[in-house]
Amino acid sequence: MFKKIALVCLVSLMIFQAKAQEKKTQIYLDDSQPIELRVEDALSKMTLEEKVAMLHAQSKFSSPGVPRLGIPEFWTTDGPHGIRPEVKWDEWDQAGWTNDSIIAYPALTALSATWNKKMSWNYGKALGEEARYRKKDILLGPGVNIYRTPLNGRNFEYMGEDPFLSSKMVVPYIKGVQSNGVAACVKHYALNNQEQFRHTSNVIVDDRALYEIYLPAFKAAVQEGDTWSIMGAYDMYKNQYASQNQYLLNDILKKEWGFKGVVISDWGAVNDTKQAIMNGLDMEFGSWTNGLSEGTSNAYDNYYLAHPYLKLIKSGEVGTKELDDKVRRILRLAFLTTMNKNKPFGNIASEEHRAIAKEIGEEGIVLLKNQKNVLPINVAKTKKIAVIGENAIKMMTVGGGSSSLKVKYETLPLDGIKARFGKDAEVVFARGYVGDVTGEYNGVKTGRDLTDNRSQAELTKEAVELAKNSDFVIFVGGLNKSDFQDSEGNDRKDMGLPYHQYELISALAKANKNFTVVLVSGNAVEMPWVKEVPSIVQAWYLGSESGHAIASVLAGDANPSGKLPFTFPVKLEDNSAHQLGEYPGNKEELAQGKGKDQQNPINIKYNEGIFVGYRWHDTKNIKPLFSFGHGLSYTTFEIGQAKADKSVITEDETITFTIPVKNTGKKAGAEVVQLYIRDVKSSLPRPLKELKGFEKIYLNPGEQKEVTITIDKSALSFFDPVKHDWVAEPGDFEALIGNSSDAIKTKIKFSLQ
Amino acid sequence: MFKKIALVCLVSLMIFQAKAQEKKTQIYLDDSQPIELRVEDALSKMTLEEKVAMLHAQSKFSSPGVPRLGIPEFWTTDGPHGIRPEVKWDEWDQAGWTNDSIIAYPALTALSATWNKKMSWNYGKALGEEARYRKKDILLGPGVNIYRTPLNGRNFEYMGEDPFLSSKMVVPYIKGVQSNGVAACVKHYALNNQEQFRHTSNVIVDDRALYEIYLPAFKAAVQEGDTWSIMGAYDMYKNQYASQNQYLLNDILKKEWGFKGVVISDWGAVNDTKQAIMNGLDMEFGSWTNGLSEGTSNAYDNYYLAHPYLKLIKSGEVGTKELDDKVRRILRLAFLTTMNKNKPFGNIASEEHRAIAKEIGEEGIVLLKNQKNVLPINVAKTKKIAVIGENAIKMMTVGGGSSSLKVKYETLPLDGIKARFGKDAEVVFARGYVGDVTGEYNGVKTGRDLTDNRSQAELTKEAVELAKNSDFVIFVGGLNKSDFQDSEGNDRKDMGLPYHQYELISALAKANKNFTVVLVSGNAVEMPWVKEVPSIVQAWYLGSESGHAIASVLAGDANPSGKLPFTFPVKLEDNSAHQLGEYPGNKEELAQGKGKDQQNPINIKYNEGIFVGYRWHDTKNIKPLFSFGHGLSYTTFEIGQAKADKSVITEDETITFTIPVKNTGKKAGAEVVQLYIRDVKSSLPRPLKELKGFEKIYLNPGEQKEVTITIDKSALSFFDPVKHDWVAEPGDFEALIGNSSDAIKTKIKFSLQ
Repeated sequence: MFKKIALVCLVSLMIFQAKAQEKKTQIYLDDSQPIELRVEDALSKMTLEEKVAMLHAQSKFSSPGVPRLGIPEFWTTDGPHGIRPEVKWDEWDQAGWTNDSIIAYPALTALSATWNKKMSWNYGKALGEEARYRKKDILLGPGVNIYRTPLNGRNFEYMGEDPFLSSKMVVPYIKGVQSNGVAACVKHYALNNQEQFRHTSNVIVDDRALYEIYLPAFKAAVQEGDTWSIMGAYDMYKNQYASQNQYLLNDILKKEWGFKGVVISDWGAVNDTKQAIMNGLDMEFGSWTNGLSEGTSNAYDNYYLAHPYLKLIKSGEVGTKELDDKVRRILRLAFLTTMNKNKPFGNIASEEHRAIAKEIGEEGIVLLKNQKNVLPINVAKTKKIAVIGENAIKMMTVGGGSSSLKVKYETLPLDGIKARFGKDAEVVFARGYVGDVTGEYNGVKTGRDLTDNRSQAELTKEAVELAKNSDFVIFVGGLNKSDFQDSEGNDRKDMGLPYHQYELISALAKANKNFTVVLVSGNAVEMPWVKEVPSIVQAWYLGSESGHAIASVLAGDANPSGKLPFTFPVKLEDNSAHQLGEYPGNKEELAQGKGKDQQNPINIKYNEGIFVGYRWHDTKNIKPLFSFGHGLSYTTFEIGQAKADKSVITEDETITFTIPVKNTGKKAGAEVVQLYIRDVKSSLPRPLKELKGFEKIYLNPGEQKEVTITIDKSALSFFDPVKHDWVAEPGDFEALIGNSSDAIKTKIKFSLQ
Repeated sequence: MFKKIALVCLVSLMIFQAKAQEKKTQIYLDDSQPIELRVEDALSKMTLEEKVAMLHAQSKFSSPGVPRLGIPEFWTTDGPHGIRPEVKWDEWDQAGWTNDSIIAYPALTALSATWNKKMSWNYGKALGEEARYRKKDILLGPGVNIYRTPLNGRNFEYMGEDPFLSSKMVVPYIKGVQSNGVAACVKHYALNNQEQFRHTSNVIVDDRALYEIYLPAFKAAVQEGDTWSIMGAYDMYKNQYASQNQYLLNDILKKEWGFKGVVISDWGAVNDTKQAIMNGLDMEFGSWTNGLSEGTSNAYDNYYLAHPYLKLIKSGEVGTKELDDKVRRILRLAFLTTMNKNKPFGNIASEEHRAIAKEIGEEGIVLLKNQKNVLPINVAKTKKIAVIGENAIKMMTVGGGSSSLKVKYETLPLDGIKARFGKDAEVVFARGYVGDVTGEYNGVKTGRDLTDNRSQAELTKEAVELAKNSDFVIFVGGLNKSDFQDSEGNDRKDMGLPYHQYELISALAKANKNFTVVLVSGNAVEMPWVKEVPSIVQAWYLGSESGHAIASVLAGDANPSGKLPFTFPVKLEDNSAHQLGEYPGNKEELAQGKGKDQQNPINIKYNEGIFVGYRWHDTKNIKPLFSFGHGLSYTTFEIGQAKADKSVITEDETITFTIPVKNTGKKAGAEVVQLYIRDVKSSLPRPLKELKGFEKIYLNPGEQKEVTITIDKSALSFFDPVKHDWVAEPGDFEALIGNSSDAIKTKIKFSLQ
């Protein structure tokens, strides 16, 4: 009897405890608990089906949470420069919402050209705020694929040719975005350096180039930026698609770098269930997206990580170890984003955001050439300004692929120029050339007066006459985000300017000496006319504030301080990928028709190895048109003799360089002090020099300040493919300091013990 | 000079201070600040245009926040019984999302029939959790319009005929919803007691009926439930539309009751800008909803509280006092909902939600009649069960208007019966009658086998034969949410059962004595066959768990404890609105064709005044078919002699009644002890008795407990139209206590000093 009572008591107590437990907040919902405890708690409550459901999309841009447990859905969004408009559930068409207009920020090439980490933080924070206000949890950006060839249609979305610059610029962006409880999703990991054959190519690259050139920005994103997610690329590496790639995802990203976040496939980048399971992919998007597949109620059930995965588990063919790892990562992401109660609410188009967009534009614009100080435009002496060129009236926030936007406004260059100069001068416009024949992108009008049936001769004649009768001529041309002109999905066909702009520029240069060429592009272009024109402004794609930022620089309200994040070669053949490497793929295979589909992929061998961009031009002494790091100012700077705090360092020490910089001109402005390292002697071939430090400094006229840059042995190291590790070899090094890769002003020798 | 320096210093200091201020969290974003301070701070930062934008919809169900300031949008959602599927931005069509299936909870009549406040809290909390998971901020419910006539097509969405029961049941629902950071929006305020002419009628009602019958549930929602929003109705009162009504909104709701929340128009209920501005409306929805109006880019710009309001302000015709008041209310709402960081994440279709839906269903079902204990079904003796009637196979979560849902599942009665009885007995089905000829609602299939071309004679014959050859017959009929059968937008045409159910029931009753009629409806129906059938179950619209809840009651797993929240009159003419009042409007005006459009509205005079429902039947001694508060159990209860803690009370005292209740039967069950107050003598006519307290009590067989009910003078008061105040007249009162309005078991006299 006693036993019976005791048992009843025990059972009652257990029931009571269980009830008490129930009433308490569940561990996974209790944000005072450690995150890993919460992850395990949620995981333990999930069914197999709920776990698998979390691994793949439910619509174009969203993926399920666990409704039963109150774990919210994830909503991803393009893109890196602004928040994409809403699309329909399972179609790419816009959903017709009227609340999804946003600010377009300058494209990432422009951000990189600021060489200003603070700008990158501002950018990420503002963009993240717009994502957050739009209730997005994962921002599909930034992109840090290395600029290997000027033909890559998507270079405008990336941060240039240098792994160090990209690394330093990507980290604050990520932190800024994620300060909103919105995940960055760094893309496209990895080796997607061209658009042509992006779905049907296999990149062959040596380990040094992989680790020294193509991976550092991703590594920095993971280890310094703490990015919560990363996007697998489309291309193959070692004959395995990047989004399901053992080497890139498991071996390097997750094991070597210790990435704890979520690997998201690019949209439609998955094509094999077992590889997707085993090789480190966590979430699958975009695989089959239109309509239904046979025998299912929902196209998304057919995803590789959906029913096919479930079947493999149920049949016992694969276990649940990988599944639980993926779900743990996704849950961790949920606690940082969707279930993060401390995240702010975001905002759209605040005064701050407009100012950030404009400031980054102004700082990113690169003054490539400025003979006789033709710029800034002398407002007092200028009564009539001719603006020539279609890009002065063409929206650049629309077009170019997945980064295409629906903006609250985009100030066109012509309007920005009119707004700035219109009260002092007459501003006249001639189109000069016809580029975008439709003037539309997915049904959106992309500019004004875009239908024009006149011949090129007529257009040129009108423009030249206007130029002759004006005090200043501003040509606004370049590329335009149409197919093959800086656009996702296809590469440029050559490095030239399209639409007869060469001839037009030459004619305009002859017509008026007060002339500047404003190039709107995300890529280097050939400039056979470079000597004919007194000034050239590289203006990128600058987003909503485009016209204002350009006008501000032309007027001298903003003193240009941008520096090229990639080399402008004189001609395409000067670029190493074209001279030494393969592009768009192996020639013989190309001739055989390879690359046409996934059954017949084409190889692309990166024969140039580590010699990408200025590493190539420097080492081989091939003079570029404009070098990496180049950019002029309306004032002049003097970089004085640098000093180091020691001449010999050990493996564990740092060395600090102090460089005096003086504004020797008459305008306030900013200079970027660039520190390159030369390995005087090395067991393996190394580039002549490599960027290992930089600092942007603002100086008033006559003002002098000291810049300090500290490096450690990582700045001296190369990747040893035999040891499969970074190696800094003892010996002599040289710090080369200047304001461009081809303008070294001061050098200091030191050695590593 | 000193002055100059001092000035420079001062200005510098001010700039510094301003910058420092900027860096700090803005007051309106700082949730440690008092809410009114945050409201004023946000208000002070908003432009005129931003303020006006917040007052009206931007899509079918959403309204703008202030993107620039990071104040989020509001997303509203139908409805009171479950969260409506997503619709397109500016169209009523479903958006084709696959993540918007939810749990349907029992319709509000069923909730009210539980007479259980705990059920109401569970309901609100669960529903709010589903709204929250679906990212909705304002739930468009509950509805508490008083049941005036059995013909009202929307009675199923409301809480019955009694203001006290509605008041007590609505409060926990609101608190439950709002515990999720989701606003309840109590509707339809006020006097929308029928669907016919809802847009084109003017209600004439005396002040006593207004205050005693039609307003108390709204007042309780405001003062006890603290509802954050309230929805204006469509109809007119004092010839002014309810959503822009000086008397209802300004005088009563905001001034008399001190409502601090937001008044939201019903969709399309606004039609006059000045009245909308001046008479207390805060947010306008649904006015023009399809396509564009002339000269605007957006149909929503044409809303009465959009550009037309802006114009009036800009022209100086109206000031901004009302505007600021409206925006303050909306901002307050934002801080409680969209900007409430402490709100939980919600969930959908959790085990708890399914259990809540089922439990409310079981508790809400009312056993109207049960001769010879034909119910519960004796499983041991029942080998074959015939289920007859289309409502056994028809979805009731789809249809009926804005409360129509897209459910994760809905267990149909036939399936619930099969699941419960199928292992012990053969369950056979015959349709019996054809009601819903299409079997579709907005393209959604609403049941099985819904096309049937057989004649009624054939259907009856099949059903009767099945009934004869079975051990038990369950007829599942009633209404079905088709037009004119419990549906928004139209009223029933009579009080009868449609589709030849009378004849069918009679035939089935003759065929088999082991017979029960399960009525699925939200309204009282005539039952000329009532004496022919041994048992009747009122099963309402029970949502996702419908079939399980019904089967559970039929089997006796759940012992029914629901009580009617409204009277079932024998015939329509017995209802006071039909005998004394006007329905659907004034007869002469009806003959003149009034009510056809808003230019020709019709008057509806509530001549019956306060004599609604049992107040009428009791007072006039008109015996109902089933009385208010009626509901049987499978066990028996004895309500013993009540005691009071005093026999005389003063104006400031309470009186507490203690009532012993015993379960005298053999099954555990619940009884609802109902306390009615009779004013023995009054200066104004009063109903014979009025409900002023109730308590549901669960008792095991043989168990006895005491119920205590405390009242104060408010339970003794009537509304004096001359004094325009509630008056409790000193004198004698009687507390009448029982388990139905027509089953008083114990009485106590007491007096008010």
